[in-house]
Amino acid sequence: MTSAKRLGERKIIEAIWKQLDKPPRLPVPFGDDVSAVEYKDGELAVLKTDMLVGRTDVPTQMSYWQAARKAVVMNVSDFAAKGVQPLALLVSLGIPPNFERAEIEQIGKGLNMGARKYNVHVLGGDTNEADDLIINITLFGLSKKKKLILRSGAQPGDIVATTGLFGLTLPGLALLKWRETGPPEFRDKFIDAVLMPSARLREGLALAKTNAISAAIDSSDGLAWSLHEISRASNVGFIIDNPPIAPETFKFAKTRNLDPFELGFYGGEEYELIVTINPRHYKKAERAVEKQGGKLHKIGKATAKDELLAQRKGKLVKLKKRGYEHFKHGGRKVDSIL
Amino acid sequence: MTSAKRLGERKIIEAIWKQLDKPPRLPVPFGDDVSAVEYKDGELAVLKTDMLVGRTDVPTQMSYWQAARKAVVMNVSDFAAKGVQPLALLVSLGIPPNFERAEIEQIGKGLNMGARKYNVHVLGGDTNEADDLIINITLFGLSKKKKLILRSGAQPGDIVATTGLFGLTLPGLALLKWRETGPPEFRDKFIDAVLMPSARLREGLALAKTNAISAAIDSSDGLAWSLHEISRASNVGFIIDNPPIAPETFKFAKTRNLDPFELGFYGGEEYELIVTINPRHYKKAERAVEKQGGKLHKIGKATAKDELLAQRKGKLVKLKKRGYEHFKHGGRKVDSIL
Repeated sequence: MTSAKRLGERKIIEAIWKQLDKPPRLPVPFGDDVSAVEYKDGELAVLKTDMLVGRTDVPTQMSYWQAARKAVVMNVSDFAAKGVQPLALLVSLGIPPNFERAEIEQIGKGLNMGARKYNVHVLGGDTNEADDLIINITLFGLSKKKKLILRSGAQPGDIVATTGLFGLTLPGLALLKWRETGPPEFRDKFIDAVLMPSARLREGLALAKTNAISAAIDSSDGLAWSLHEISRASNVGFIIDNPPIAPETFKFAKTRNLDPFELGFYGGEEYELIVTINPRHYKKAERAVEKQGGKLHKIGKATAKDELLAQRKGKLVKLKKRGYEHFKHGGRKVDSIL
Repeated sequence: MTSAKRLGERKIIEAIWKQLDKPPRLPVPFGDDVSAVEYKDGELAVLKTDMLVGRTDVPTQMSYWQAARKAVVMNVSDFAAKGVQPLALLVSLGIPPNFERAEIEQIGKGLNMGARKYNVHVLGGDTNEADDLIINITLFGLSKKKKLILRSGAQPGDIVATTGLFGLTLPGLALLKWRETGPPEFRDKFIDAVLMPSARLREGLALAKTNAISAAIDSSDGLAWSLHEISRASNVGFIIDNPPIAPETFKFAKTRNLDPFELGFYGGEEYELIVTINPRHYKKAERAVEKQGGKLHKIGKATAKDELLAQRKGKLVKLKKRGYEHFKHGGRKVDSIL
């Protein structure tokens, strides 16, 4: 027999998927960032549900309001990748019996903070007794079927771009684990990336409006993993000749003798969007993001080859399909790398 | 400080609700069976999310496929009360790392079984590592705003009716706990009520179509509690002169020296619908349910008094606002009564 721990998250999902009757039409493939149902010709109800679990997703130093806020951000980030505004948010809570009223209020506060940041309200939910803190968020939104950006539309020659730089959360988790804050220039960047993540909803909505995006994904499983996902769904390869790694990550890596490439590509829980864009439309997409106060980072391009390459210390190396995976790393993400 | 255990589920929900910004329009009040958002004039997206937690919701003798199936039923029952067909089902799983592949496959099978029974498909979800089995289900459906049956529409003089009889789950839980099955006449009724519950979706959909229903609720918090909820929301009282207690419950109670009234009114996890109906429309409602192969049990009527009374051994007694509540009973439901 094979245990969940040995199977890992993706094989578990596969095993469950095999047991399910498949609906006749599935406008978004199983395993994409969101699910959807075509409730009327060409009109999609878009749904997302994602669970935050205390033992794996909440570092000790994270307050409960931050955990609740993060649970919202995790879900909104997937809507952002699809360019869909959440219209309703529901929450299911599992709360250990020894939680105090003040802690429960903190959870309410964090949920509200997250929801209001993205212009949605908490409409209802469910509360349960559990051994560990569980915060399960559900989002609902609407989209036109032909407007929804999938992972599968990238074409060879498309530009690959991200809404931000990577490599911040692993140093952040490490600093928290070591109970250090690092020099001031690190502190906010790294630690905020862990405790106060943000979803790129405004950017995602603006990008969707341009019709310039051929494929998109949220990068919460890590930059390398997410690129592999687009590659698989779109049947393209990638050359990432300008890796989007934060300058602070290079500095941090140097002081600790770590590999910035590892920190940037194989981290995770970084809620940026990764998009592919036909070069003809790139300017339009770039302007749309800048209008929202954001920035689009051109990191490489899609190719017709079945190969993912990225620039590392002046030469192109293969990008592994590797990222954080529940079960396999058994517990907290930071322990998997540091 | 007050712990979650002392606060109890309802006070926890209140504490969280207080932290939330309220949306300008809320077509269904917070705390009703479902949540809804008016995405277009008069059109509601109806949403439900409910979590099944191993330690409180899964008796030892329940298989994993039964647990997964039950998680679906719990949620569908709330849609049934609103007369809404689920159009999409999402699932978030928390799985302990030592679960075997066969157990995970069972969960997939049970999810599919539950979903297909109610004509919906599992469209996607999320898998996580957790200390205990967690199955969180989300449902989506559509309704016209003016068609949605709330808890608040009952009028004095309305007939109160249920879609089935009560008092089966507590004996079922007791038999399972005692590792007994009881005489054959008990076995299926009681034990199936626990391990293989059903939601009254067909009845709920048929009732909603008649326009005869003034208020409705699913009875999963127990018969007494659910009547109190309609009473509070509709500002009516009730006289339940024909309590819907199963004949088997009376027999079981006798052999064990238990009170059938307690078993019938203060149980819970019985997924019947409780509805109120203007007497003029009763026949129509009754026929609609019978057409679906079901039965409507006339149990009493709504009054203008602020009082809930029920027939017990030949006289009317007050119905307490009591039912199973997470946290307060600390652990399994059956221990709270037997």
